[in-house]
Amino acid sequence: MTPSDTWFYENFSYTGSAIGFRITRKLDEVQSPFQKIEMYESTDWGNIMTIDGAMMVTTRDNFFYHEMMAHAPLFTHANPKNVVIIGGGDCGTLREVLKHKGVETAVQCDIDEQVTRMAEKYFPELCESNNDPRATVMFDDGIAYMENAEPESIDLIIVDSTDPVGPAEGLFNEAFYKNCLKALRPDGLLVQQSESPLALMHLIHDMRKAMSDAGFKNFRTLPFPQPCYPTGWWSGTIASKSACDLTKFREGDASAKTFATKYYNVGIHQGALMMPEFMKTELPD
Amino acid sequence: MTPSDTWFYENFSYTGSAIGFRITRKLDEVQSPFQKIEMYESTDWGNIMTIDGAMMVTTRDNFFYHEMMAHAPLFTHANPKNVVIIGGGDCGTLREVLKHKGVETAVQCDIDEQVTRMAEKYFPELCESNNDPRATVMFDDGIAYMENAEPESIDLIIVDSTDPVGPAEGLFNEAFYKNCLKALRPDGLLVQQSESPLALMHLIHDMRKAMSDAGFKNFRTLPFPQPCYPTGWWSGTIASKSACDLTKFREGDASAKTFATKYYNVGIHQGALMMPEFMKTELPD
Repeated sequence: MTPSDTWFYENFSYTGSAIGFRITRKLDEVQSPFQKIEMYESTDWGNIMTIDGAMMVTTRDNFFYHEMMAHAPLFTHANPKNVVIIGGGDCGTLREVLKHKGVETAVQCDIDEQVTRMAEKYFPELCESNNDPRATVMFDDGIAYMENAEPESIDLIIVDSTDPVGPAEGLFNEAFYKNCLKALRPDGLLVQQSESPLALMHLIHDMRKAMSDAGFKNFRTLPFPQPCYPTGWWSGTIASKSACDLTKFREGDASAKTFATKYYNVGIHQGALMMPEFMKTELPD
Repeated sequence: MTPSDTWFYENFSYTGSAIGFRITRKLDEVQSPFQKIEMYESTDWGNIMTIDGAMMVTTRDNFFYHEMMAHAPLFTHANPKNVVIIGGGDCGTLREVLKHKGVETAVQCDIDEQVTRMAEKYFPELCESNNDPRATVMFDDGIAYMENAEPESIDLIIVDSTDPVGPAEGLFNEAFYKNCLKALRPDGLLVQQSESPLALMHLIHDMRKAMSDAGFKNFRTLPFPQPCYPTGWWSGTIASKSACDLTKFREGDASAKTFATKYYNVGIHQGALMMPEFMKTELPD
């Protein structure tokens, strides 16, 4: 490190740990009606987006999260045609979803248009499918969107939100999950980012309890690396409307996938279903 | 975060990223003939050991590394009886190795006695097997130890070292690997910590090339989470003296293991053998 290096750190109060990146310069910032969005250029991680000071996306490592949040549930569902993404304003999850040719419609509903405007400018590769005719990119309240969704019209809901504080708080409770349940077809799935399985197991417990209280039947939490998030290890939790085995997925289709990924493949999906010893104890499925 | 919070960061120049922990106080420090060892108490991660400013061990997250460095190669070997650990002065790897009842001798050879003295004081749980009659805890140069080892006397060598700079530099080159090869029985294995598969793939390439030049036949790099190391994602690389399939291991024995672990189990081992898409491209096995 030379004395002139500038490091941007995020201190995670609730985990007692921090992640940082070496920054070249600040590229942009905007105060939207909902939150403050800032963009940095880094020496090794490409561009970095923060929201209210929290690391959201880097050019270099976003593929772990976006691929696992999209491909794992899509290959778990037998035939997903209609997908809704709540949040996901950086458009990276939408891009992964649209790699599945069987998907007929994908709605991305983020409350904050400025997140997408920033992504278009600084993560253009994540936005490359925004003009796909199957895609609808809208800016609205995801809670209201799910409340008003047509019953039994959706195969997969992906909740790709910030942490359960601030604008995203209402995406982590029973009322929201009840609306999701109603909007899903009988074989429908919900997947939600569920924070660090090492540091935030209590959040995964709370989330599963609220999902269960809302009527969801089965649950599975899949861990994956995510260097820019607290502890560098993250997870997505899949919940099913009807009783089913979420450790089964379309392995043949995942093996034969014709689109490119950087992290996800059939083996990675199998591996993510293998729970670490301490998670087995904490989360008996 | 309150204004009085104190954070200790390690800036990893070569990855352009940083890891930090919230510190309560400094517990201890010693300048050994080889390096500066410092101990901190943290709010959420227990005690933390740094060597020359680099994060080495925390109470909370060391289990990922120690379990993967021990159990993955031990269950890959058909019948490991004689194990040598080069480095590993915190004794955590030794403790895991000795959980295997078939292991008859385990030698830990770390150059720096002060690392073990600090571990005894601040990580007593990692040192709980140091008095096992099968264990030899010695303080000597690991390079010389391997040079002088009896040929074909060892089943598994675990290189549990710091990064390939400073005292550990000589543990990452062909001359060292040649001595390891000579000391291993024909079905012997070497495992070495191999840094972050996201950020340091060039190091894994260099390591494998040096191992291959020394005469090792097959290689497998197993990733695992490790929050206190750069990117939060780490790896161990297993190399075999004779041609063999390192994706095969004693799954029955791993399933039936009678000792406790926090991370490792048969499924985690299977999962770690499933290479992420970008690693498949980078490291064709």
